Amino acid sequence: MNQFEALAARQTRLSEALEKSRIPALILNPGPSLTYLTGLHFHLSERPVIAIFQPGQPPVIILPQLELAKLENLGYSVQAFPYGEDPATWQAVVRQGMQKAELLSGSAAVEPRQFRVLELRLLESAAPQASFTSGEEIIAGLRLKKDADEIASMQRAALIAQDALKALLPQIQLGMTEHEIASELTLQILRHGSGSEIPFTPIVSTGPNSANPHAYPSERRLREGDLLVIDWGASYQGYFSDITRTFAIGKVGEEERKIVDIVHQANTAGRMACKPGAACQDVDNAARKVIESSGFGVYFTHRTGHGLGLEGHEAPYMRAGNTQILETGMAFTVEPGIYLTGRNGARIEDDMIITQDGSLSLTDLPRELITLPL
Amino acid sequence: MNQFEALAARQTRLSEALEKSRIPALILNPGPSLTYLTGLHFHLSERPVIAIFQPGQPPVIILPQLELAKLENLGYSVQAFPYGEDPATWQAVVRQGMQKAELLSGSAAVEPRQFRVLELRLLESAAPQASFTSGEEIIAGLRLKKDADEIASMQRAALIAQDALKALLPQIQLGMTEHEIASELTLQILRHGSGSEIPFTPIVSTGPNSANPHAYPSERRLREGDLLVIDWGASYQGYFSDITRTFAIGKVGEEERKIVDIVHQANTAGRMACKPGAACQDVDNAARKVIESSGFGVYFTHRTGHGLGLEGHEAPYMRAGNTQILETGMAFTVEPGIYLTGRNGARIEDDMIITQDGSLSLTDLPRELITLPL
Repeated sequence: MNQFEALAARQTRLSEALEKSRIPALILNPGPSLTYLTGLHFHLSERPVIAIFQPGQPPVIILPQLELAKLENLGYSVQAFPYGEDPATWQAVVRQGMQKAELLSGSAAVEPRQFRVLELRLLESAAPQASFTSGEEIIAGLRLKKDADEIASMQRAALIAQDALKALLPQIQLGMTEHEIASELTLQILRHGSGSEIPFTPIVSTGPNSANPHAYPSERRLREGDLLVIDWGASYQGYFSDITRTFAIGKVGEEERKIVDIVHQANTAGRMACKPGAACQDVDNAARKVIESSGFGVYFTHRTGHGLGLEGHEAPYMRAGNTQILETGMAFTVEPGIYLTGRNGARIEDDMIITQDGSLSLTDLPRELITLPL
Repeated sequence: MNQFEALAARQTRLSEALEKSRIPALILNPGPSLTYLTGLHFHLSERPVIAIFQPGQPPVIILPQLELAKLENLGYSVQAFPYGEDPATWQAVVRQGMQKAELLSGSAAVEPRQFRVLELRLLESAAPQASFTSGEEIIAGLRLKKDADEIASMQRAALIAQDALKALLPQIQLGMTEHEIASELTLQILRHGSGSEIPFTPIVSTGPNSANPHAYPSERRLREGDLLVIDWGASYQGYFSDITRTFAIGKVGEEERKIVDIVHQANTAGRMACKPGAACQDVDNAARKVIESSGFGVYFTHRTGHGLGLEGHEAPYMRAGNTQILETGMAFTVEPGIYLTGRNGARIEDDMIITQDGSLSLTDLPRELITLPL
C-alpha cells in the first residue's frame, strides 16, 4: 500500500464511521488527526485551517491563500476555499465552505482537545444554524489500533529515545542542573535520528523535584543521594515514544531504594496485565495493587498510563473505571509512580503494544534502580 | 523588581483592564498568557487546567491533583480546585470553581487562539447560564508592549539564533536534504543556549520548495543553482526570535538574484517605516510598494509581519488595513517575500522593537544574497 492508498483507506474508514454514527461531518483543524487523514501539515496559528470530511465527498479545506501550494500533488482531490490576510474577510469564505458541505444548518463533530474557540466561533458566526458536537469517539476509534507501519515507526521512535539516553548517561555529572541535563538529552534525541518535533521537552527532575510528576527542568544541581527521574521521548515519521527511568546518584537512602523497588514491581505487574480482552482498568489495577499493598497507594497520584501514537497522550487511558477493552494494535504507556512531596519520587514507564496473544514492550532499557557512577 | 513583584504587577494590570472593559473575568488555559500572568507552566493536555482571573480576587485554578505541587511557593495566593483521574468527576469540580468566582450565571472572556472546545464545553456544562466572549483584545493589550527585561530576553533569543546559523553555514553541503539541514540547525540552536522549547521547527526550503512560505523540511537534496531559504528561531526565558535569510547555492539564475534583491529592498523599506506613531499598515505598505513597483506584487502573498514575544505569532500584525498605532516597546517581524510557484522564492525577516525615537532591529545578520561556497 503506498502512501496515497493508505490515506484513501483512512478517509474511507472515517466515512464508514460517520455513517454508522449518523454524524454528517467531521471538522478538523491542524494537528495529528488532520495529518493522519490527509498527510498534510499546517502550523496551528492565528490563521485558521478548517477541513470538513463527509462520506462520499472530497474534503473541503478552508485555508490561507499562502498555504495553497500544500494542496498540489496530493494524489486525491480536495475542495479548497482560500482566504486572504484580512481577518474581516474570513467569515464569508468559511460560509462558502460550510455551504459547499451543506452544513449551514446541519450538525457536525469537532475534536475537543484540538479545536479552538477561534475556529468554533468562526464556524458559528458563518453558520449560525449549525451545531457542533464532540468527535472524540470517532477520532479515537480511527487512530486507536495501530497498523504494522505505525508500530514500526513507534518501535523506531523508542529505539532512538533509548539510544539517546545511553549517549547521555556517561555525560551526567554532579553539579549539572536539571536544565543542562535536559538540553543535552534533547541534543542526543535529535542526533540519534528523531524527527525535529520531539514529543515534549524531557522532564529531568532531581531530589525533591522528583516528587512532581510533571516538573519542568529547573536550575537545581544534581547532588549525591538524589533520585534522578528522566521522562523523555523521540519521534519518527510523526509517531512518538515516551519513556521514564529513575536513577540513583551515588548512595541513596533506604526510602529512595524502597520506592523505586515498589514502582519497578508495579511496572512489571502493569505490563503483565496487558493483553487482548483485558480492560484498561485491569492494567491500572494490577499496577496500583502493588503500590497500595506496600502502603504507598495514596502517593500514586495519577492513572497508570495513556495511549501513544501521533500524540503524546491519546486514547486508550489506563485508569480506574475505564472498562474499554484492549485489542490487538493498541499502543499505550505503563508508568506507575510514587511521589513523596518535598522528599523524592520515582516513576518507571514503558511503551506497550497489544499483540494477538499478549503484549510487546517497545522499550527495554533496564528498569531496576541503577546507580550512576559519578 | 523581583519575579513575584513583576507577576503581581501584571495581575494588577489585568484587573484594571478588566474593570475598564467591564468584563467580570478572564479565563485562561495553559499557554503563554497563563505563564505571563502567573509564572506557571502546564502542559496543554487532555487534562484541562482552567485559571480564572478577577479584579481583587486571588486567581481560581482548576487543575489535576497531580499538578498541585506546582502551586507551592508561588509567592502569591491562589484558590485551587484539584480534580482526580476520572473525567466523569471533572464537571463538578469546574462548577465549584465557577461558583467560587461567582460566574455561574456571569459572562467571562476566554482566549480564542488558545482555549479549546474541551475547556469551553466543560465550562458550559458546569455553568449553563454563563456566557463566554473573546478576551483577545484584553490579552493582546497586556502583552503588546514589552518591558526592558522582556526586550533583553528577546535580544538574547535573537543572538542565540544568529550564532546557531553562523555555526550551521560551514556545515551545509551539496546533496544534504532539507531535513538534514533543519536537524543540524536545531542542534546548533540548542547548543548555543536556546530554551529547550524552540519556537518552531526550522523551515529549510530549497529550489522550487522555497516558493512555499510555510514549507516543512523535505527529503529534497540541495543542488547547485538553488535558492536556500532558512526561517528559524530560538527562545530565551520563554521569549522567541524569528529570522529568515535567503542564500544562493553556487551560481544562481538572473531571476533568483533579482527577487532576492527586491525582497532585500522591501525589507529595508519596511524596517525604515517602523517608528512610534506609524500604523501597522504603514509598515506593510512600505515593504509592499517596493515589491509592487517591481512588478512582483501578486507574488508577495502574505502580510509583512507579525508580533513576537512569548508566542511566535501574536499582536500586532503588519498587514494592509490594520490601523493599529505602533508604540514604544512593541515587538514584531518584518518579513517580505516573493514566491514564484514551481520555480523559487525568497524571504528576508528581521525582529523589530519600537523605541522612543524609531526602532531597533534585534537581528543584524547580512541581508543581501550570500553565495555559499560549496
